[in-house]
Amino acid sequence: MADRFNDSLRSLYLEWTSRMQGDPNMSIQSMREMQESWQTVATEPLGVTYEDVDIDSLKALWCIPAQSNPELAVLYFHGGGFIVGSPMSHRKLAGHIARAVGARVLVIAYRRAPEHPFPAQLDDGVKAYAWLLEQGYSSDNLVSAGDSAGGTLSLAIVEKLRRLELPLPGAVLAISPGLDWEGKWMVNQANDKLASKEVIVGMGSIAFAGGSVTDPLSNPLYADLAGFPPVYVAAGGHENLLGAAEKFFDKASAAGIDVHLDVADERQHVYPFAVGNDPEADRTINDFAAWVLPRLEGKEPETACSDWRDEAATTPRR
Amino acid sequence: MADRFNDSLRSLYLEWTSRMQGDPNMSIQSMREMQESWQTVATEPLGVTYEDVDIDSLKALWCIPAQSNPELAVLYFHGGGFIVGSPMSHRKLAGHIARAVGARVLVIAYRRAPEHPFPAQLDDGVKAYAWLLEQGYSSDNLVSAGDSAGGTLSLAIVEKLRRLELPLPGAVLAISPGLDWEGKWMVNQANDKLASKEVIVGMGSIAFAGGSVTDPLSNPLYADLAGFPPVYVAAGGHENLLGAAEKFFDKASAAGIDVHLDVADERQHVYPFAVGNDPEADRTINDFAAWVLPRLEGKEPETACSDWRDEAATTPRR
Repeated sequence: MADRFNDSLRSLYLEWTSRMQGDPNMSIQSMREMQESWQTVATEPLGVTYEDVDIDSLKALWCIPAQSNPELAVLYFHGGGFIVGSPMSHRKLAGHIARAVGARVLVIAYRRAPEHPFPAQLDDGVKAYAWLLEQGYSSDNLVSAGDSAGGTLSLAIVEKLRRLELPLPGAVLAISPGLDWEGKWMVNQANDKLASKEVIVGMGSIAFAGGSVTDPLSNPLYADLAGFPPVYVAAGGHENLLGAAEKFFDKASAAGIDVHLDVADERQHVYPFAVGNDPEADRTINDFAAWVLPRLEGKEPETACSDWRDEAATTPRR
Repeated sequence: MADRFNDSLRSLYLEWTSRMQGDPNMSIQSMREMQESWQTVATEPLGVTYEDVDIDSLKALWCIPAQSNPELAVLYFHGGGFIVGSPMSHRKLAGHIARAVGARVLVIAYRRAPEHPFPAQLDDGVKAYAWLLEQGYSSDNLVSAGDSAGGTLSLAIVEKLRRLELPLPGAVLAISPGLDWEGKWMVNQANDKLASKEVIVGMGSIAFAGGSVTDPLSNPLYADLAGFPPVYVAAGGHENLLGAAEKFFDKASAAGIDVHLDVADERQHVYPFAVGNDPEADRTINDFAAWVLPRLEGKEPETACSDWRDEAATTPRR
C-alpha cells in the first residue's frame, strides 16, 4: 500500500540514515544542519505570519494564523532527540497546527544537548509556560505539544508543573513521543527508517548524560498519570515508538485520564511533518484540532467558530 | 567603528570560512546545508505570509506582505554562487523587501550548479518572469532582484530578455552582485570574510563549467547597458565585490541609465541579510523601496500609499 502516497518523509529518513552510517564521526553541527531539512517535506501553511520572541534569552517563534482565537495558545517543543531540530525545522508543521487549531503556536528554541544535558530543555519549557501565563493566557487554554523528544517534553512538563505546584495546561499533544529510552517496546525495527532502537537509545544516553532514563521527567511513561489533562497521542504505524505510544495509551486509560491514540497506517516517525503532502498528516492535524477545542476551558467548537473565526485577531490577550 | 553594531553576519562568515578551510573536501551537500544558516542573522519580517508555487516543476516561494499592491511584484534570485542558497535561506530577507516595497516577492528555487551549470539558473529566471507576465503583471511593474550570484542574474535577465525580444522589467535591484568572476576588481581581500578572490573565482569556474565568464550573460558588466531599466546597486564597504559594483555604476552612468549606488560603511557581502539586526541593512531596504516605487509605471509613492496601503490585498492581479 506504500504507493498510495508519496512518502517523501521515508525517503528523507533513508537519506539521513545512509549519510550518518557512511560518516559515523559526523559532527553534531553537521547533523543539526542536515536535519534542518525536515521542513522540506511540508508545504507552506497559508496565511500564517511569524514573530521572533525573546523570553529572557530563550528564543522562540510565534506562528500566528490569520484566524486566531486570542484566548488560546500552544507551547510547542520541537523534536530531534534533544540534540537537533529548531523552530526553523518545525516552522511549517507548527504553522499548520496553528491554522488548524485557530491559535498561536510558540515554538521554543530550548537549549540542546550535549552542550546542555537534560533537564535544560524542560527547564526552558517551564520558563516559556510561565511567560505565557504572564501574557494573560489561562492555563486551561494552553496546550503543551511536541514531537519525538519534544513529545517527551510536552508530557514531562505536566509532571514538572505538578511538582512545582503550578497550574496544568488544558491539553497535551504528543506526536511520536520519545517514551522508550531503554528500547524496551520497539515494534518496527525493520520499517522505521530513522528511529532505530540504536538511534533512540543512543540519543537518550547523550541527552540524559548518565542521568536516569526511567525518571518520570525523562520518560513520562513512568509517571503517575492520574490527574493528567487530556492527551492526544499520534504515532506512525511503521515507527518503532508505536509500541511505547500504545503502552502510554493503556496506562493512561487505566489511570482514568482522557486519552486518544491516533495511529496512522504505514507512516514513519513524526509523520505529520509531511503536512500538505500526505493526507494522513493532514487528517491527524485536523482531528487533533477538532479533539482539542472542546477540551479547552469547556469551549464548544461551534462557539469558538462563531466568536472569533470571522475576526483576524492576531494579537495575544494581555 | 566596528563596535557600533553587532556584526553577526561577519561572525557567521568567519565561522563558515574556518569550517571550509578546515575541511577542504566538504561536500556540496554539506556546504549547502551549512549556508542555509544565512537566515539566522535576520529577524522574522512581521505580517508576511508564504505560499509555495510550482511553475511547471520550477519551485518558488511567494512572500506576501499584509499590505500588498496587487499591481507590483518582485522576482528574486537568491545568492550562493549558483551552487548554494535557496528560498529558505533567503525567506526572511525577501520577506523584509516585500514589506518595504509593499508587494509580493517571488523567490525561485532555480536549478543549481554543478548539477546544472550556467545558464540553467538564468533560463529558470526567464521561465518565472514569463509566468509572472501570464499572471497579469505588467513588465513595467516587475522588479528583477537578487544578491551575490543572484545579483548577477537580476541584471543578466535584462540582457537575456532583450535578446529574446521580451519586455524588460521596470527596475533592477542588485545586492553585492557577482560581477567579477575573473577577480579583476577585488578591493577588500583583507576585510571580506566570505567572498575572497579565490572563493568567487572558484565558484564561478564551477558554475560556468568552462563557459565564458566575460559573456554579458555571465557578467553583465560586459553588457551594453544602454537601454537598461533603472538599477539600484548595493554593496558593503568591506566587501571584495565593491570594486565591481563601482565599475558597474561608472559604466551604467556613462551609458546614461538611471543607476544608484548604495555603499554601506564597513559592511560585508550581502549585508542586507542582517535586516532587523543592523540599521544599515534596514536603511538600504527602505531606501530601495523609496527609490523603486516612483520608477514603476510612473506610479507616485503617495498615490500608491493612499490607494492600497489600507487594504490587505493579498492576491495577485489576474
